[in-house]
Amino acid sequence: MSDIQTPTVRLKPKISPRQIRFGAPWIFADQLVLDRRSRNIAPGAIVAVEDGNRQPLGYGAFNANSKIAVRMLGLGPVEDVDADWFEARFARAAALRDRLYDAPYYRLVHAEADGMPGLIVDRFGDAAVVQPNAAWTDSHLDALCAGLQKAVPVSTIVMNGSGRARKLEGLDERVDLLAGQLDGPLAVPMNGATYMADLIGGQKTGLFYDQRPNHAFAARLAGGQDVLDVFSHVGGFSLAALAAGAASATAVDGSASALELAEAGAKTSGTADRFTTRRGDAFAEMEALAAEDRQFGLVICDPPAFAPAKPALEAGLRAYERVARLGTGLVAPGGYLVLCSCSHAADLAKFREVSLKGVGRAGRRAQILHVGEAGPDHPVHPHLAESSYLKAVFLRLD
Amino acid sequence: MSDIQTPTVRLKPKISPRQIRFGAPWIFADQLVLDRRSRNIAPGAIVAVEDGNRQPLGYGAFNANSKIAVRMLGLGPVEDVDADWFEARFARAAALRDRLYDAPYYRLVHAEADGMPGLIVDRFGDAAVVQPNAAWTDSHLDALCAGLQKAVPVSTIVMNGSGRARKLEGLDERVDLLAGQLDGPLAVPMNGATYMADLIGGQKTGLFYDQRPNHAFAARLAGGQDVLDVFSHVGGFSLAALAAGAASATAVDGSASALELAEAGAKTSGTADRFTTRRGDAFAEMEALAAEDRQFGLVICDPPAFAPAKPALEAGLRAYERVARLGTGLVAPGGYLVLCSCSHAADLAKFREVSLKGVGRAGRRAQILHVGEAGPDHPVHPHLAESSYLKAVFLRLD
Repeated sequence: MSDIQTPTVRLKPKISPRQIRFGAPWIFADQLVLDRRSRNIAPGAIVAVEDGNRQPLGYGAFNANSKIAVRMLGLGPVEDVDADWFEARFARAAALRDRLYDAPYYRLVHAEADGMPGLIVDRFGDAAVVQPNAAWTDSHLDALCAGLQKAVPVSTIVMNGSGRARKLEGLDERVDLLAGQLDGPLAVPMNGATYMADLIGGQKTGLFYDQRPNHAFAARLAGGQDVLDVFSHVGGFSLAALAAGAASATAVDGSASALELAEAGAKTSGTADRFTTRRGDAFAEMEALAAEDRQFGLVICDPPAFAPAKPALEAGLRAYERVARLGTGLVAPGGYLVLCSCSHAADLAKFREVSLKGVGRAGRRAQILHVGEAGPDHPVHPHLAESSYLKAVFLRLD
Repeated sequence: MSDIQTPTVRLKPKISPRQIRFGAPWIFADQLVLDRRSRNIAPGAIVAVEDGNRQPLGYGAFNANSKIAVRMLGLGPVEDVDADWFEARFARAAALRDRLYDAPYYRLVHAEADGMPGLIVDRFGDAAVVQPNAAWTDSHLDALCAGLQKAVPVSTIVMNGSGRARKLEGLDERVDLLAGQLDGPLAVPMNGATYMADLIGGQKTGLFYDQRPNHAFAARLAGGQDVLDVFSHVGGFSLAALAAGAASATAVDGSASALELAEAGAKTSGTADRFTTRRGDAFAEMEALAAEDRQFGLVICDPPAFAPAKPALEAGLRAYERVARLGTGLVAPGGYLVLCSCSHAADLAKFREVSLKGVGRAGRRAQILHVGEAGPDHPVHPHLAESSYLKAVFLRLD
């Protein structure tokens, strides 16, 4: 690409280029010289990036509407961000996943860590769900889809443009079928079970791949147990536990459609006879189960993010403590409790502390067996290492 | 047990009993009223513990020679710490492990977290290695062995009384065969390979069970790769990688006996034809391999604790950075690097930081795929949650 057509943005003279040269993925708006010319650069445009002395630093994607004004794409000369560019990055991402997993069901692209900032792609066999959460992924969507299909044999591409991240970039909500077709939910083999994923109507991209290693670890504790799966979504923990020989599994969720998918998954997995669902508010259902004197050998609570960002932290931690207290009351003597958080704002130390406090308030003591994180198809960028959002604390109670 | 015979110790009036009531496992010497009478209590004796107002708190094991004057054993009335007492605790510990593992090869007791403070027991089929690292486990060794054999079918019991922990308790070094017999190294099935463990002459208890999940994760990256296993000990990473289809594995260690056991393990595993060892200083060997222009698809560096305690922290972190830098230089393009630390003093944030700095100094960039910890047969006491010592950082390099 000729650099003549590419707009250039420049770090403020006082901002050191050191972090960028070492691979930092973001430049914030207040670190840039933002004049009328740069403010007029179209959101999502590719820009050349210079340091305060006009020395080239690399190239990135610009968005004057976001606090993250530049997402770095490379440290060398500006490259054409076309289908070939995307193909190379997708192929590199796929090589890792194909080494890690036996079947093509995984998170294919995990944003910054895979060199495609703001982009999430989940693969379901020959279908993919794309979440273009940064302006440049939205404006380069055609090249992105073309590159994806050159790198990976997917015929169906769904765009899921919902959620908080797009709002922060000034992008609209949009769910679209970009290629191929979909005839209802897809069957996804994972941890010995078969899950049903609704790629168009479901939450996020239809299935939470990030919990896969935690589903697997819980399944190791499940043999012969009655399992309670609170905030079950489409049955991630339940179906893995049943496949591993759980005596029964009870899934609790507020969403009728999620529970229907869970039931369909249990049917396909051949474990429907041991599977029950309860639709309702998770807190109310846990209290109802306690009133029924129900006890389970393994209780898993995997709530939505109660503390997605800092302002919600205190209230979020109180909610996690309440989940821990109610969950503990349903664990049989000597049984197991799994407490999950996908809150960015609650770090492991804080989440573990309120979880253990909840256990203590319910009058029980615990051993910490394991702390799980997101699976390796969710790699982490070295400069965002504190960003591991998913925590799964596995406890054995007295 | 009649309380009349049991000596009593008491918290200082200003020390709140709250943490103890909530399950804190330790009382430090400076938190206790220590008079001539209490100083004369035999090391390892069982004592009743009272708060500053002479209200009973529970019972524990006393040692006037340790900074940790009392290790709590229970919050109720004093119990006889006899064979039956040990049997109950061993049985509870075994129940967890037998749920987690297919075969009886695991850490059976992990000290405080298993209600037996200062005691480590590793099980190798019908043999066990006991590390009595607190005075009470040493003075109750007969009851301990009797209880162990009542709870778990082990015929051979080795006592490994070496290492730093015993010195801090004022205990002597001692390695003994307490029951049964041993005819050379034992075969240990793990992660698809067979390891050879020398229970009498080896490091620690002969095998590092704590790394098992990290061996397994590395093995997922090993298929078809040339693997370099630096600080290999008896081949933990190498043999698992070979069992998972590595093209070759090269183990580097300073100990000839460890490498002999690794070779014996490879032979038993049927992978000796793909296995090479290099004896020597790990740093020197890494430099030599670099001088030979050797490259590996997967490099693992699992050094001994460079920062076991705080005074060694800065020097330890420099050593970890050097390991990362040298290791990085041996990773083929697109290959994988696994960096481990078993240093208590270097927390994950610090260890990850120097590891990534070392990678950067070698001119490479990384994705963080996974951070592994010790396996679930090494549970953690809730009040010692910051004590997870083992870190394994899995990186993919550019």
